[in-house]
Amino acid sequence: MARSQEEIEELSICKDAQIMIEKAEKDGVVTVWDRFKAQQPQCTFCKQGLSCRNCSMGPCRIVPGKARSLGVCGANADTIVARNFGRGVAAGAAAHSDHGRDLLETLDAVANSETQSYEIRDVDKLLRIAKELGINTEGKETLQVAKDLSSTLFDEFGIKKGNIGFTMRVPEVRRKLWESLTISPRGVDREVVEMMHRTHMGVDQDPVSLLLHAARVSLSDGWGGSMVATELSDILFGTPKPVESKVNLGVLKEDEINILVHGHSPIVSEAVLTAVRDKNNIERARAAGAKGINLAGLCCTGNELLMRQGIPMAGNHLMTELAIATGVVELVIVDYQCIMPGLIPAMNCYHTKMVTTSPKAKFPGAEHVEFSVKNARTQAQKLVEMAIELYKKRDKNRVLIPVEPVSMMSGFSNEAILEALGGSLAPLLDAIKSGKIRGVAGLVGCNNPRRKHDYCHVTLTKELIKNDILVLGTGCSAVAMGKAGLYMPEAASLAGTGLSSVCKALNIPPALHVGSCVDNSRILHLCGLVAKELGVDISDLPVAGSAPEWYSEKALSIGLYFVASGVYTVLGVTPNITGSKLVTDLALNGLTNVVGACFAVDTDPHKMAELMINHINKKRKKLNLPV
Amino acid sequence: MARSQEEIEELSICKDAQIMIEKAEKDGVVTVWDRFKAQQPQCTFCKQGLSCRNCSMGPCRIVPGKARSLGVCGANADTIVARNFGRGVAAGAAAHSDHGRDLLETLDAVANSETQSYEIRDVDKLLRIAKELGINTEGKETLQVAKDLSSTLFDEFGIKKGNIGFTMRVPEVRRKLWESLTISPRGVDREVVEMMHRTHMGVDQDPVSLLLHAARVSLSDGWGGSMVATELSDILFGTPKPVESKVNLGVLKEDEINILVHGHSPIVSEAVLTAVRDKNNIERARAAGAKGINLAGLCCTGNELLMRQGIPMAGNHLMTELAIATGVVELVIVDYQCIMPGLIPAMNCYHTKMVTTSPKAKFPGAEHVEFSVKNARTQAQKLVEMAIELYKKRDKNRVLIPVEPVSMMSGFSNEAILEALGGSLAPLLDAIKSGKIRGVAGLVGCNNPRRKHDYCHVTLTKELIKNDILVLGTGCSAVAMGKAGLYMPEAASLAGTGLSSVCKALNIPPALHVGSCVDNSRILHLCGLVAKELGVDISDLPVAGSAPEWYSEKALSIGLYFVASGVYTVLGVTPNITGSKLVTDLALNGLTNVVGACFAVDTDPHKMAELMINHINKKRKKLNLPV
Repeated sequence: MARSQEEIEELSICKDAQIMIEKAEKDGVVTVWDRFKAQQPQCTFCKQGLSCRNCSMGPCRIVPGKARSLGVCGANADTIVARNFGRGVAAGAAAHSDHGRDLLETLDAVANSETQSYEIRDVDKLLRIAKELGINTEGKETLQVAKDLSSTLFDEFGIKKGNIGFTMRVPEVRRKLWESLTISPRGVDREVVEMMHRTHMGVDQDPVSLLLHAARVSLSDGWGGSMVATELSDILFGTPKPVESKVNLGVLKEDEINILVHGHSPIVSEAVLTAVRDKNNIERARAAGAKGINLAGLCCTGNELLMRQGIPMAGNHLMTELAIATGVVELVIVDYQCIMPGLIPAMNCYHTKMVTTSPKAKFPGAEHVEFSVKNARTQAQKLVEMAIELYKKRDKNRVLIPVEPVSMMSGFSNEAILEALGGSLAPLLDAIKSGKIRGVAGLVGCNNPRRKHDYCHVTLTKELIKNDILVLGTGCSAVAMGKAGLYMPEAASLAGTGLSSVCKALNIPPALHVGSCVDNSRILHLCGLVAKELGVDISDLPVAGSAPEWYSEKALSIGLYFVASGVYTVLGVTPNITGSKLVTDLALNGLTNVVGACFAVDTDPHKMAELMINHINKKRKKLNLPV
Repeated sequence: MARSQEEIEELSICKDAQIMIEKAEKDGVVTVWDRFKAQQPQCTFCKQGLSCRNCSMGPCRIVPGKARSLGVCGANADTIVARNFGRGVAAGAAAHSDHGRDLLETLDAVANSETQSYEIRDVDKLLRIAKELGINTEGKETLQVAKDLSSTLFDEFGIKKGNIGFTMRVPEVRRKLWESLTISPRGVDREVVEMMHRTHMGVDQDPVSLLLHAARVSLSDGWGGSMVATELSDILFGTPKPVESKVNLGVLKEDEINILVHGHSPIVSEAVLTAVRDKNNIERARAAGAKGINLAGLCCTGNELLMRQGIPMAGNHLMTELAIATGVVELVIVDYQCIMPGLIPAMNCYHTKMVTTSPKAKFPGAEHVEFSVKNARTQAQKLVEMAIELYKKRDKNRVLIPVEPVSMMSGFSNEAILEALGGSLAPLLDAIKSGKIRGVAGLVGCNNPRRKHDYCHVTLTKELIKNDILVLGTGCSAVAMGKAGLYMPEAASLAGTGLSSVCKALNIPPALHVGSCVDNSRILHLCGLVAKELGVDISDLPVAGSAPEWYSEKALSIGLYFVASGVYTVLGVTPNITGSKLVTDLALNGLTNVVGACFAVDTDPHKMAELMINHINKKRKKLNLPV
């Protein structure tokens, strides 16, 4: 039975989503909300983290205090919950870091002149990062520096050296804290593998020990794998600068060939962009009857293109199936992560094709055109030609572009923020000290059909900026803010008087798009810079984080590396840990005594804002700043 | 209610187990069988691999063909089953390889003169392995070779180089097959991390692609992490040679101080052995009223000591709680893997203490005495003193050593086998060609309360040797064979006439103890040697593998690396894959067309033997050998 208008409005705050959910229903497209409904009720053991299938004496389900209070091996609820959580963090860290590895292998190929498809676009940043990691760049050719850098960064993934290089960005006091807790991150591969080892039957049974190692894993992601991904993406594809673009399904064009890139890495999408901009291809498109070729992004590979190239953004996680339902998308080109397999049956309702490009992520029903460092140009050309062919099959009677696009600014890398501030952090610190800017919040993470789509992201952002808290957004959270108009300087009118005055002076929005989800490393780095500048620990800063609508294991790693770095973090979806009081108490409270920060969970964005504002005020008080 | 004698006999074929299960019941010790019973019925979704909790849109449970046939993301049963299986293999490979890493770091510390606790005991093997891996050893000091070797092996874990070094032990035809399937193993850490990445929501959805990568992960374990563990253990602690020892709970001594070592690595247990043999400690023990200090092993760290030092073996996986119930164990010293947390409440029923030694494996309720490469001697001394103190608290009224020990031979490393054969494989190959030895079977893996303890291991071994198939045993399987008397030359009388004549000529048993579970790499290596010698692929050999009572994720990795190396492998416990027909069919059949071998599953050891014998006969026929 079709959903009523009221029911549809409960699913998403976005007009484009609402209209498209209705069209999808009519067109017979099954969406994530339909499948979510069909999966109710969900298993309460799994939801509480109380089921274990880490060996074949099990599977076991724990009912604390009853006959089933122990697994076959003897593990209790605390151990099992902590193990399951640990594996989730490991998977998230692995995803980010394996993405970073791909960038590193690309840099290595460029350095060794093994590819014509890529180049070093930001030589300044290459030199800067190389120097930061102790590489002598004096008198060296660019490619030699790139070789040395890639060689050094390979160690960031390995086991040979001690701690990873970018932890030097952390204030010494925190590095020492990590050392005292034995959670100084080593190579990210090693940390992930150790977590998989620890969670094997009969290895680590201590929930505290498991959670501390989970923290270590997450830190090796945040200050390791993800940070490598960010920095090398900048070196290879350019460090983002402020740029204006458009967002929502209205960026799709009825009279052009529409190609969507979806996934997380810029490696494929940047190659596709080059081919899309090729004059011969534009002519080919015109010959096929289209006005041009329109490239738009989804999710984080979209964020990567938006940040650096101003490519418009069609939508975030829950919009991906709905984008196809517009009927105007010829090709969805994906790399990896967060690509719902539900896209395949969705595209089968239209002329749309999905192409997978990574050997790591194949989808039955999609066409596989494998990209490598070496063949990226050729393959990208093939895909653009494929899109032009598909355009001819578009059924004009089934087309619906639901809304007009919204303008947004993007491109706020730390380098760009520093430049906007005139080259030094001082103006930002002054604004924070004076209270014009009361604090900074990082809003990150995904969408989740458990929560009304984009509602928490947008409502929480509005609350925070109203209270003079500058919001930095990444990933799907950032897309939500963009769609709500919060990424334009005009949104300063929604901010408190302090923040508003700063935004007007600098002509920036009160919420800044700082990147994709690996780019949370930019927020970490900024925290490190500010803390060092103020001579305090990150946990002393008037900052807070939130993942209001998170769904993925990557978000678990992100949340944990923020907390383990000292940033209080509010989640809008409860992790699967409630089966253990010990683990839950530690997450929501006890961690404060260990790493100086903890998690909070709330589903109401107004309460989430209150928690974050209270935390920021508490930190301001401690720093003797006006509250 | 207490179990009847009949019920107890259904749990284990071993007299010591049967007696101790009864005593454990009386003493109030909860055993693995009690917990297994309490966990019935087990979740059918988890058991079929049909539940997914890889993201917080879920958890999802799949009912194929119904409304619940897709997860919230759209993943179907095939994808979910393959992902769950892949993560299991990754965890198993991670466990083995992280163990190998510890050996490597120990070698590195020795090479750099950073420890007095360890040394290089087999310099010949050091030189041989170094040369095999392309290291120039000419005119180099031992420690320099060790440095070069450790440096080379660090890369086996990392991402920098292409394929791992020990794959040169594989016949070229198989290496090429792996290349054509893109499953040539790279560094094991990288493969594990990539599996965690691929199994994240929205990455690899193709069950075939996921299973191929699982194969790659397992190969990086078998020919990588595990092989490093074996070879470096030999270099550091000596390459095993034939040695006689004793096995079962009868190895515990009423008038001595009993220390059990449990876990998997030789690093801690070898240090403990040195301390146990120290004259001053023996005198201390006597002063405390004991006749001496008796060190015995459990599980694989026990196998490590048994293989190299002839230290007696108290029992395998399901015997660990029962060993404590004898009331004569002062100290259980553990490192990691397969250590049931159920040991903690068990030891609390007696004066026994459990000590954890690895930072990776803490147990609430155990004492933690952390071992490092540098402090191992001091810590081992501390533990022996602790055992002597505990002896004073032993309650003599609660003591029961249930049986007399059984004699067994151990120490059949490949080097030892070669030596027994007079320095060349020719006599073995001749025996195989003539049909005196019809083939070789590897019996590996654990115990599992789903199966009558040791029944399958022993029955299957007897069936195989009766049919002139030489059996190589590792891990808990080997312990079962030893207890059944199959590891003595006299057991040749149970073998077929051909095998029996070979055993008598060489004075060896018809089943050989080749090591711990990482030492399955010895079997792989032997397969490689024989195949190269015969100029065929491993999949052409008249060999088969079986894990009749497996329970652990490590066993998943082991089973898969055998199959991916070309060895037909029969499992006695069904993996959690039956929710996907595609994955099940591939495992039980389709893999043959891909890697030249597949799995079979049966619970009846007679049928398992039949399957293996038929397979071996088929291979003999193909090689034109008499059947």
